[in-house]
Amino acid sequence: MTVDLPTIRLRPKSKPQAIRHGFPWVFADEAVTDRRTRAIEPGGFAVLEDAERKPLGLVTVNPNSKIIARMMDQDPEASIDRAWIAARLVRALALRERLFDKPFYRLVHAEADGLPGTIIDRFGDAAVIQPNAAWAERLVGDLAQALRDVTGVSTVILNGQGRARGLEGLPERMEVLSGGVDVPIEVPMNGAIYLADVLGGQKTGLFYDQRPNHAFAQRLAQGARVLDVFSHVGGFGLAALAGGASHATCVDGSAAALELARGGARAMGAEDRLTTRQGDAFAQLETLAAEGAQFDVVICDPPAFAPSKPALEAGLRAYERVARLAAPLVAPGGYLGLCSCSHAADLTAFRNASARGIGRGGRRMQLLHSGQAGPDHPTLPQLAETGYLKALFFRLDG
Amino acid sequence: MTVDLPTIRLRPKSKPQAIRHGFPWVFADEAVTDRRTRAIEPGGFAVLEDAERKPLGLVTVNPNSKIIARMMDQDPEASIDRAWIAARLVRALALRERLFDKPFYRLVHAEADGLPGTIIDRFGDAAVIQPNAAWAERLVGDLAQALRDVTGVSTVILNGQGRARGLEGLPERMEVLSGGVDVPIEVPMNGAIYLADVLGGQKTGLFYDQRPNHAFAQRLAQGARVLDVFSHVGGFGLAALAGGASHATCVDGSAAALELARGGARAMGAEDRLTTRQGDAFAQLETLAAEGAQFDVVICDPPAFAPSKPALEAGLRAYERVARLAAPLVAPGGYLGLCSCSHAADLTAFRNASARGIGRGGRRMQLLHSGQAGPDHPTLPQLAETGYLKALFFRLDG
Repeated sequence: MTVDLPTIRLRPKSKPQAIRHGFPWVFADEAVTDRRTRAIEPGGFAVLEDAERKPLGLVTVNPNSKIIARMMDQDPEASIDRAWIAARLVRALALRERLFDKPFYRLVHAEADGLPGTIIDRFGDAAVIQPNAAWAERLVGDLAQALRDVTGVSTVILNGQGRARGLEGLPERMEVLSGGVDVPIEVPMNGAIYLADVLGGQKTGLFYDQRPNHAFAQRLAQGARVLDVFSHVGGFGLAALAGGASHATCVDGSAAALELARGGARAMGAEDRLTTRQGDAFAQLETLAAEGAQFDVVICDPPAFAPSKPALEAGLRAYERVARLAAPLVAPGGYLGLCSCSHAADLTAFRNASARGIGRGGRRMQLLHSGQAGPDHPTLPQLAETGYLKALFFRLDG
Repeated sequence: MTVDLPTIRLRPKSKPQAIRHGFPWVFADEAVTDRRTRAIEPGGFAVLEDAERKPLGLVTVNPNSKIIARMMDQDPEASIDRAWIAARLVRALALRERLFDKPFYRLVHAEADGLPGTIIDRFGDAAVIQPNAAWAERLVGDLAQALRDVTGVSTVILNGQGRARGLEGLPERMEVLSGGVDVPIEVPMNGAIYLADVLGGQKTGLFYDQRPNHAFAQRLAQGARVLDVFSHVGGFGLAALAGGASHATCVDGSAAALELARGGARAMGAEDRLTTRQGDAFAQLETLAAEGAQFDVVICDPPAFAPSKPALEAGLRAYERVARLAAPLVAPGGYLGLCSCSHAADLTAFRNASARGIGRGGRRMQLLHSGQAGPDHPTLPQLAETGYLKALFFRLDG
């Protein structure tokens, strides 16, 4: 295969060592591009060479992306075909089967699972692929077939939405590639039942990444009055109900998400312990304060307020505001969980913004736990700084 | 009470705002000391004032420590007596009773639990106090009585060992303050049984801080061959056996610790699945490699190689060496857990050293999970940078 492949070469003084040690990306300004490189179609393959023309591995090239090349295989003679994809899926599946009793998890988390730019979430007999790199879009038929072969799922859905695809120059699309599924799907997690709308929901319909943080909140929930702000389909609220919360209130801007939250509670036989409030979360927090509402556990899991570096300062102010508005709603000695899924806000910055907000909300605090995404969201250590999900659990003063 | 108390004053341009927002310490160079301040006996109380003589709270003073004052109570008129201590213990106990089914946990984690410099670990009906600040040493009788009153424990042990006491100018001592106890104590945790020698062991006899990390390793252990290096009394090894490991090998330098590990395995009915190897851990890792040994899960939990900033570089090299020697012992597709309890090595530095070592050990990796100390080890957000415990779980290539 190699003989047919074009080559792409690192500039002198770029970082062949990092690549050799597993860094998976080449940025556009690190590569020598010539007519032949620029003619590679997005998602095509090439052999990456160092400045001395020694091969470093097989990469996928996308001249339209800031990440011009992504490492597919350290073996420059590898063939990226259905069998190659299947071998990566076997390896990814082995980890999830070790970690989880039931087939509901993120099966593939992109680079760290050896399938660059590719996200696959599994919902029992169905799976949702997000091909966020051009190679995966090109080979999505092989991806889907390998996925059916390795896992036995029958329904495969392509979810081509979201910011990452824009950066790769890929269009938005949504397609059922095989099988069919009645939505919403019931998803068991932490003893709760969630309803995932894998065809119309946000991202792939459910956020598996919060699973360990839901579990931590659940440990605090026995007999508690729980408020779940930015609840989506009830992530923290339903986990709390499964953990014995006396009552959960879910607040979200989306009526559709709250309908799914109520459906989940119904499936759990807990609908009489759930209240939903639709509306702007900031406004709802202020309304609840005006009503004098108090909760034993309050969790706020907002959308990414700081998705990129330019948005960092405004994002941190928004996180501080969430903390300031939420703190007064926490009963004496109660618990406050604050989450961020912003890449740009690192743990220290987010913790400081949260602590400042809690202080301005008139409360003192202990920090109990700093949670991250679950282990079905592995990372490459070389990219671990970008670990995006943070969940801080505080106890407030009595 | 205030009228009798001396005062200690912040220098102009020091940080009254930080203190007002909950930072709990005044360093010696931040305070104006005069004859009267210097005459305060170590562990005495004083009113902390800002440079404008506005009171900031009640502090304990130790002229022998770099931390000259520690905040006891934001109320400058507070009386630090048995009732005051009991109120702090009630609050600390409420958190642990919410988190744990059984009375085995760190009950007091110093500043974050409002009892500066004071560690209390609970082992059922017994508790071990580490009074690592002079005030706690002075009032240890009240501490012990309040502890019995609030928790109902009968045995209270004072463990006055360790580095922290030296920094406070406190002598080494060990004393049974009340009751009596047959050692070792059986400690149930994560379904395993550990033996804690609360009279003669390291620290308070058992490391509760690793509980969530033991639990994570346990999820990987079903049917696995497990190697626990620097095992102490078998922290990871016994958790793995409780999780269904086919076999665990514990390596430690201490014959006494390994005897406790074997005793724990006996109490679990798992002694036929445990092997212990006494000796220098580095040498043992090399011996195991020479023997061609392979394990599905390898965990290394060494002592603090970088306890202070001057030791950081040498410490990171030691962590890298552990990773390099351990990586070849991990079977294809197996798991490697690497821990650090060094304050000076932050998460990024430790992760980089670990990844470098694994790479030099000839392996590629995914990072699955970055664990910390459990929630019975809360922190103040203002001191959270010092979070000392890190546990990184990698999967190595197949």
